[in-house]
Amino acid sequence: MTHSSTLAAATSEKLVLTLSCPDQPGIVHAVTGVITRIGGNIIQSQQFGDPDSGLFFMRVEVDSPVGREPVEEGMREIEQRFSATWNVDQLGRPLRTVIMVSREGHCLSDLLYRQRSQGLPIEVVAVVGNHPDLAPVAQFYGIPFLLVPVTKESKQRAEEELLTLVRAENVELLILARYMQILSENVCAEMAGRIINIHHSFLPSFKGARPYAQAHERGVKLIGATAHYVTPDLDEGPIIEQDVTRVTHADSTADMVALGQDVERRVLAQAVRWHSEHRVLMDGSRTVVFSR
Amino acid sequence: MTHSSTLAAATSEKLVLTLSCPDQPGIVHAVTGVITRIGGNIIQSQQFGDPDSGLFFMRVEVDSPVGREPVEEGMREIEQRFSATWNVDQLGRPLRTVIMVSREGHCLSDLLYRQRSQGLPIEVVAVVGNHPDLAPVAQFYGIPFLLVPVTKESKQRAEEELLTLVRAENVELLILARYMQILSENVCAEMAGRIINIHHSFLPSFKGARPYAQAHERGVKLIGATAHYVTPDLDEGPIIEQDVTRVTHADSTADMVALGQDVERRVLAQAVRWHSEHRVLMDGSRTVVFSR
Amino acid sequence: MTHSSTLAAATSEKLVLTLSCPDQPGIVHAVTGVITRIGGNIIQSQQFGDPDSGLFFMRVEVDSPVGREPVEEGMREIEQRFSATWNVDQLGRPLRTVIMVSREGHCLSDLLYRQRSQGLPIEVVAVVGNHPDLAPVAQFYGIPFLLVPVTKESKQRAEEELLTLVRAENVELLILARYMQILSENVCAEMAGRIINIHHSFLPSFKGARPYAQAHERGVKLIGATAHYVTPDLDEGPIIEQDVTRVTHADSTADMVALGQDVERRVLAQAVRWHSEHRVLMDGSRTVVFSR
Amino acid sequence: MTHSSTLAAATSEKLVLTLSCPDQPGIVHAVTGVITRIGGNIIQSQQFGDPDSGLFFMRVEVDSPVGREPVEEGMREIEQRFSATWNVDQLGRPLRTVIMVSREGHCLSDLLYRQRSQGLPIEVVAVVGNHPDLAPVAQFYGIPFLLVPVTKESKQRAEEELLTLVRAENVELLILARYMQILSENVCAEMAGRIINIHHSFLPSFKGARPYAQAHERGVKLIGATAHYVTPDLDEGPIIEQDVTRVTHADSTADMVALGQDVERRVLAQAVRWHSEHRVLMDGSRTVVFSR
Repeated sequence: MTHSSTLAAATSEKLVLTLSCPDQPGIVHAVTGVITRIGGNIIQSQQFGDPDSGLFFMRVEVDSPVGREPVEEGMREIEQRFSATWNVDQLGRPLRTVIMVSREGHCLSDLLYRQRSQGLPIEVVAVVGNHPDLAPVAQFYGIPFLLVPVTKESKQRAEEELLTLVRAENVELLILARYMQILSENVCAEMAGRIINIHHSFLPSFKGARPYAQAHERGVKLIGATAHYVTPDLDEGPIIEQDVTRVTHADSTADMVALGQDVERRVLAQAVRWHSEHRVLMDGSRTVVFSR
Repeated sequence: MTHSSTLAAATSEKLVLTLSCPDQPGIVHAVTGVITRIGGNIIQSQQFGDPDSGLFFMRVEVDSPVGREPVEEGMREIEQRFSATWNVDQLGRPLRTVIMVSREGHCLSDLLYRQRSQGLPIEVVAVVGNHPDLAPVAQFYGIPFLLVPVTKESKQRAEEELLTLVRAENVELLILARYMQILSENVCAEMAGRIINIHHSFLPSFKGARPYAQAHERGVKLIGATAHYVTPDLDEGPIIEQDVTRVTHADSTADMVALGQDVERRVLAQAVRWHSEHRVLMDGSRTVVFSR
Repeated sequence: MTHSSTLAAATSEKLVLTLSCPDQPGIVHAVTGVITRIGGNIIQSQQFGDPDSGLFFMRVEVDSPVGREPVEEGMREIEQRFSATWNVDQLGRPLRTVIMVSREGHCLSDLLYRQRSQGLPIEVVAVVGNHPDLAPVAQFYGIPFLLVPVTKESKQRAEEELLTLVRAENVELLILARYMQILSENVCAEMAGRIINIHHSFLPSFKGARPYAQAHERGVKLIGATAHYVTPDLDEGPIIEQDVTRVTHADSTADMVALGQDVERRVLAQAVRWHSEHRVLMDGSRTVVFSR
Repeated sequence: MTHSSTLAAATSEKLVLTLSCPDQPGIVHAVTGVITRIGGNIIQSQQFGDPDSGLFFMRVEVDSPVGREPVEEGMREIEQRFSATWNVDQLGRPLRTVIMVSREGHCLSDLLYRQRSQGLPIEVVAVVGNHPDLAPVAQFYGIPFLLVPVTKESKQRAEEELLTLVRAENVELLILARYMQILSENVCAEMAGRIINIHHSFLPSFKGARPYAQAHERGVKLIGATAHYVTPDLDEGPIIEQDVTRVTHADSTADMVALGQDVERRVLAQAVRWHSEHRVLMDGSRTVVFSR
């Protein structure tokens, strides 16, 4: 942000500030000191100290009469003093997002519908599919669809294409909306903490392929879905959100697939909303979710 | 049932009839033929044919003007004709039950409360504990408490004591209400399909010991409980009922234990109720549950 | 059905049969007698006798080797004998449906998505809107959109247009997918038991207009939605399905609207599925729902 | 607290601090300033500004190395400056509680069980019943049972007896655990914000008497329970917690009563826990619940 834009922005602005650091006395007072000095007002805030990891987490929504820059300046001091990781963003600013898909469209349709009609704070730069099936859905919402087929041979090139897009478009979030390919460690590393996947089971039950078939065979009475950050360790990334729905003996695997789709899209949308609202903070292999 | 008691019973009686057999045309008509011949009236009924196992399942509540014996007679013919497994019981008759416990009393208290005040159809013959802690709870409800400690050395003798009790008291149902010992194959075999356990996780997640600690470590957002029939294959028996409850990053393992207890007792009570009402039929390693 | 088509259909066909009549002995045996005589096989069935209303309800899925006509013939005898109301339909046949909308598209999008991708058994003949806003959604799915504005003056003409469409197209089901106009008694009568509405509250709480605003003001901790058959008595029709979702003090009325949309579309889709599968039977002002 | 006890307490102590006041900049910084000055550490905290009421709410769990008195001193300054209502208590200190009952014991048993085994932070001074039925339950837990029958004539005297008990025993919380008498305005006023009732319906549905019968008649598909603060305006007090459970056409009013009991006790226990942990703040006729 240049100096001139700072001046231009020096009017009332709503911000969201997140911070994590080793737990110790004085953190909240220091952060709210920054806010008080600039005459800011706290709209909503949550703090949590994890006794297991020894880390402290904080999220504040603040109404700043002087814009963003003075808050960031204050936070840089706090970063030094408390060895903190922090972020300041405009409250409600949509994250620049790429949605990756294969053939099943329920999650894609749902995300685009919520973006359009329910204020889900993402700005979908492109939909990337390894199959052409969902191009019409993207088209309906006026979003570019990029067909990037993936075979054993083309995988590396496909991922380079993806990363080129990510860099060129300043993509902040990758959503795997039932994308049936596994991303390489390379992509996972570059986008660490910024790739959300929906797994169609209640993890850690039924990892891997065909979870509904596994669930049907085991005779479970609830099926579920799990949204998690993607790490190189498949299906083991930090969980953001989970939910379940009831099934009975009369439900075939196909019935479970249909019932499960409802849970998948709901869970994924919830996770994306919380992430985009800066409500999810990483606590080792777990997440702190400052839900509403 | 002696002949004289049959005569005495030859007045209006509500019965519950269950049946399973290889699927084929004519089963329901044959069964309802038995009911029609005796002038019975169907109160409620459910049928289900499992395309996977090729088995057919049926449960009927029937108002019989001539009591039980003629129905059983008719069912013996059906057994022959359709290679059926069947059962006829008085509707609402409490099953003769032994509840086994260790130290945690939430499931025991809950079952006894429901038996007393909510019409849970079990008749608790005895509470058997490998620790003395829960004797006062049994005492409060006026039920004999049998202390049967289990060590490596005494295990065989303890189980013989249990089986002696089961046989002497015509026990029809064993409930493992957070009983922390593993029953031998011997007991599992003798009481096959008649032992219900509550596992304190959402199976197949977190099998084995300390599931809440495992759940906390993995950072799941829901924890659950599973009621299942006990088989020699630990935590793998046919599932009767499951449920979950929401947890957050702020819940410690101890919090999860407390939250989980609510789910455990609810799930166990539901499973016991359905079993006692003859709503659960075995379909290989799964169950058909004709819930209300 | 003409005689020639009957002959053509005299091959294996899956049927769904529903029946309700005053409760009395012999009903199930008589119905299954029809099925047995034609060599049919019961796939799934449920029966229920309501002690309050004295009515008996039955739903059977049957595999008929001789098609539909002989079953209907048998049912006509049963109709006479038991004063029964009954219906036989091809299992899974989509109902000819008109969806009515105003401006909010979440329910429409959801129904069309499920019809297309999840086998929701409806055949959408047309979308009728009193505003043009949702025409593109219908268009995306290749379904005719009929704009029928409703003002005080034009209401009667608008309803005549609707009824003309209903009759010309043999419409079996009207779905009010957040249609914000009230249908006249005339339409309610002609389509009795065949109009499903989604009300955006957990009835009987918050009847009438602006239920989320009412809910927010009252400070409830759960909000819900109700799918019901439409009767001239507004918001009082027989309930088919309801569900709820959790809200907190931090949720504004606008937040509740967004959260509620998820419940609305899920509840409406569930009700439509059950209705279309002939699982819902009318029991006075209540419904019997033979859910899976 | 006398001066000497202050000195004695001037060692590490965990506190919970709540505050509400008209929203304005600087509140959190001022409160955390108090905490910082005494070298305290924030364990967990939540803040919320209600745009509707213009009120700000805060709850902090703090580890104080100098005990409670200096915190209270600091809060008195804040009270002046921000026109704040505040409270400081020892974290986890059980509230001195009287449970009032009539004949149904599920809520009483549940509360006492949770107090004993799950750390529900209440100290039950006495159980007061207008019928003798539940005396044995109190006795089992070693708690005095006070029989205070209520008739039209004796009502005033009965309430005086209650208030005498409340004052003599410094009772901080009255729980109406299915107590079927209506408290007078007098008692409501003296204990404002400190009486929790469980209503056996999902308010505002089915106010008044026999809610399950009303629910059965209306044919709802979910039944619920509501825990709320008692105000002179019956069934209209601020809602603390609600939950629901599913019912079907096959459930009689009696079945609903049994199913509802589970929801009632769970909802009441949750509300009592949150109240006792100082997580519930009054926001006009609504509540702010800083749940975990």
